[in-house]
Amino acid sequence: MAKPSVLTPQADDFPRWYQDVVSKADLADNGPVRGTMVILPYGYSLWERMQAEVDARIKAVGAQNCYFPLFIPEGHLKREAEHVEGFSPELAVVTHAGGKELEEPVVVRPTSETVIGEYMAKRIQSYRDLPLRWNVWGNVVRWELRPRLFLRTSEFLWQEGHTAHVSQEDARQYAERVLHEVYADFMVEVLAMPVLKGRKTSRERFPGAINTLACEAMMRDGKALQMGTSHELGQNFARAFDIQYLDAAGQQQHCWTTSWGVSTRMVGGLIMCHGDDRGLVVPPRLASIQVVVVLVKDGPEVRAAAGDLMTGLQAGGVRAELDDAVETSFGRRVVDWELKGVPVRLEIGPRDVEAGTVSLVRRDTGSRQPVPLASAVVSAADMLDTVQVDMLTAATARRDENLHDVDTIEDAVGAAAEGFGRMSWSALRADDGETRLRTQGITVRCLQRPDGSLPFDEDEPDLVAIVSRAY
Amino acid sequence: MAKPSVLTPQADDFPRWYQDVVSKADLADNGPVRGTMVILPYGYSLWERMQAEVDARIKAVGAQNCYFPLFIPEGHLKREAEHVEGFSPELAVVTHAGGKELEEPVVVRPTSETVIGEYMAKRIQSYRDLPLRWNVWGNVVRWELRPRLFLRTSEFLWQEGHTAHVSQEDARQYAERVLHEVYADFMVEVLAMPVLKGRKTSRERFPGAINTLACEAMMRDGKALQMGTSHELGQNFARAFDIQYLDAAGQQQHCWTTSWGVSTRMVGGLIMCHGDDRGLVVPPRLASIQVVVVLVKDGPEVRAAAGDLMTGLQAGGVRAELDDAVETSFGRRVVDWELKGVPVRLEIGPRDVEAGTVSLVRRDTGSRQPVPLASAVVSAADMLDTVQVDMLTAATARRDENLHDVDTIEDAVGAAAEGFGRMSWSALRADDGETRLRTQGITVRCLQRPDGSLPFDEDEPDLVAIVSRAY
Repeated sequence: MAKPSVLTPQADDFPRWYQDVVSKADLADNGPVRGTMVILPYGYSLWERMQAEVDARIKAVGAQNCYFPLFIPEGHLKREAEHVEGFSPELAVVTHAGGKELEEPVVVRPTSETVIGEYMAKRIQSYRDLPLRWNVWGNVVRWELRPRLFLRTSEFLWQEGHTAHVSQEDARQYAERVLHEVYADFMVEVLAMPVLKGRKTSRERFPGAINTLACEAMMRDGKALQMGTSHELGQNFARAFDIQYLDAAGQQQHCWTTSWGVSTRMVGGLIMCHGDDRGLVVPPRLASIQVVVVLVKDGPEVRAAAGDLMTGLQAGGVRAELDDAVETSFGRRVVDWELKGVPVRLEIGPRDVEAGTVSLVRRDTGSRQPVPLASAVVSAADMLDTVQVDMLTAATARRDENLHDVDTIEDAVGAAAEGFGRMSWSALRADDGETRLRTQGITVRCLQRPDGSLPFDEDEPDLVAIVSRAY
Repeated sequence: MAKPSVLTPQADDFPRWYQDVVSKADLADNGPVRGTMVILPYGYSLWERMQAEVDARIKAVGAQNCYFPLFIPEGHLKREAEHVEGFSPELAVVTHAGGKELEEPVVVRPTSETVIGEYMAKRIQSYRDLPLRWNVWGNVVRWELRPRLFLRTSEFLWQEGHTAHVSQEDARQYAERVLHEVYADFMVEVLAMPVLKGRKTSRERFPGAINTLACEAMMRDGKALQMGTSHELGQNFARAFDIQYLDAAGQQQHCWTTSWGVSTRMVGGLIMCHGDDRGLVVPPRLASIQVVVVLVKDGPEVRAAAGDLMTGLQAGGVRAELDDAVETSFGRRVVDWELKGVPVRLEIGPRDVEAGTVSLVRRDTGSRQPVPLASAVVSAADMLDTVQVDMLTAATARRDENLHDVDTIEDAVGAAAEGFGRMSWSALRADDGETRLRTQGITVRCLQRPDGSLPFDEDEPDLVAIVSRAY
């Protein structure tokens, strides 16, 4: 019935399919300044639900929300050498304000380590003040020459966590805890995305970090998207900003700090991990509209029945919406709900009411199921649970089908044409593989132990490297 | 017991008392760039609760959250003449980005009418698309020469609502609805602040508006603080940005738009409306910590009893925190909780447990009440309700004591020395009173009808003007 013809098929042109979905599902638009983004209400509702889920997990690991300024003095940024070198090309600089030229230009934050470092130093006196765990929800600016909505925009929305600890061990444990309990848990359980967790190679690290951990997801075209990162910053920022504490023995020590973030980029990841030729597919736990009750045709009985269904769904805690816009054709409305990826559609018309049945349609598989009207609320709620589980299973199966163990650089290139390659890190390294792969547009996404756990450092024996093309 | 000596008394130096509270209650700090602000976790928890309460009300009046970019091309801002003139002196301008000088400088948004106007024009086709109701939570920049934390900062956090309507009547009704149902309702019911609602004089209007409505609150030093505004923008922005719709008769019409906002400034208003010489006083509905259970002295029985109280409070939906930091003196901890303004303190020591009683202490009045341990949870919850009501009553009484009806400009000046003056608008106007008062640092805060309702325009007969000094 509903034809997917509004979108460029994925197989024809994946990047164009992506643009089509973003535009036709009313997710976002280009801002008036090149590289910036307008996030439209439906797109923002996805981000708002991501924020709520991530925020709850951030609080559960003991971090407190706070706010740091948008503007950073240029001098602050220069105090950590690797950091400024990494970010300089992407900075936006305010030179005039309040009608005058500024004495010292200020930078629009690309990330806030350097301003937060100053305040950590101010507020930490002794080991009793540690760990200090702060989180900021805000916007950051990194000038993009090749912007793509959600994936790569000059301004994006994110959260950035910043913590200070008494020891390297404590900082490391916390950075790992954030990766597991905040990021991966959210991505797997809510986004239904089977992310791979690993350690970045030294070449791919965050500027100024001693270790970067990441969650990497496979998109439907086989490319990787980095969904979130958690960094051990060692004592680099603590030295640059004098973040010191008095230990129990009365000695001044530098803290060990971490930082970690996820952004509106995750919306792009969600689209490309689950979407199909009909549009977005949103997992039920994330969906701002979980069930849409669609009136096939109008009539007093059908309106009454739909109203009862809405009441029942909402009473059961389901985020439901009624589509009674019968002046628009049923087919066109269905196409639109499919575009928006609403997980479960409940279709009801006059004939259904007469027969005492309604149709439940799953967005992920497209399968349609007639159910008794009387038990439709329960059936819809059950279907949401099923869809959530099945979406993760399906995404995991797709990922595993396109993840191949390889022994040589040549085979890694072949694997990366379709998906991910997994190769011995020592073999890859021995052969200067990281450089050779780069020339083909392929990067080492992360390093893992053979059992998938996080390496202690990149010199551990038996590590495997996940390699692929990436967004 | 607890001495308020940590703060400058209000009567000695109110502005200094304010600074002391902001600093000693760990609410905020100055940012590294002049005029910017670091909002510390406790201060941010107040803002976060304000956001949640305001956001729920915004959604209840049908507006949808979305996001618009931080950067606005300079040309956009210039399209509405009054608007650019009003904001030009406060703009921060990015001239360099991505390592190059920009062809057209971009402005950091001081407010977003001009960027949002472009997208309203793009998305509105016919009357069926109206009303269009958008809201953005974000940061804006208005360069401040005399910054004060929360009250006046170069960057602040806020929400800005923007709507488009088919008619002036519809736009006016919506602007008023936001003032009543979103802002005043929140301020009165949650912040316990008896705000006056009124219409700004044409001189005090938002640049580009045809009508500005405001909520004005009295601070404890008798000055006014503008807590929120809701603007009718007429067709000014619709003409500047071609925001048009096809009406039912097939004619192109310009929309009528509104905008409205509240900001982190409200945190400053909260402090100055309720605070006293012991510090902040937070109304229970806003408080991120509603009840603090304070261990007077340590002991296994007292810990067990305090744990039970915490369980009981949290089970009852009370936001409770346990203070078992017995290594710090009890008196010092009490001073700190009073500074932070936690509405109810539940003090429990070994002797209390033995006697089967605990002490409940109200932050607003300081009154102490022994209650049976067994019913302490219920008593604390009841006390929260009482404190919420009493705080509004007390603030209303303070305001009414300091609001005087006056007949002459001279008496208005006298009234404004202590609080608010209320005077006939026609008498004030006839005498060029607005200008004369301004020379004495006094402004017309708003115009009201004699019954306190909103005037239709400033030429209505019998209007009263509220005049005062203001933040």
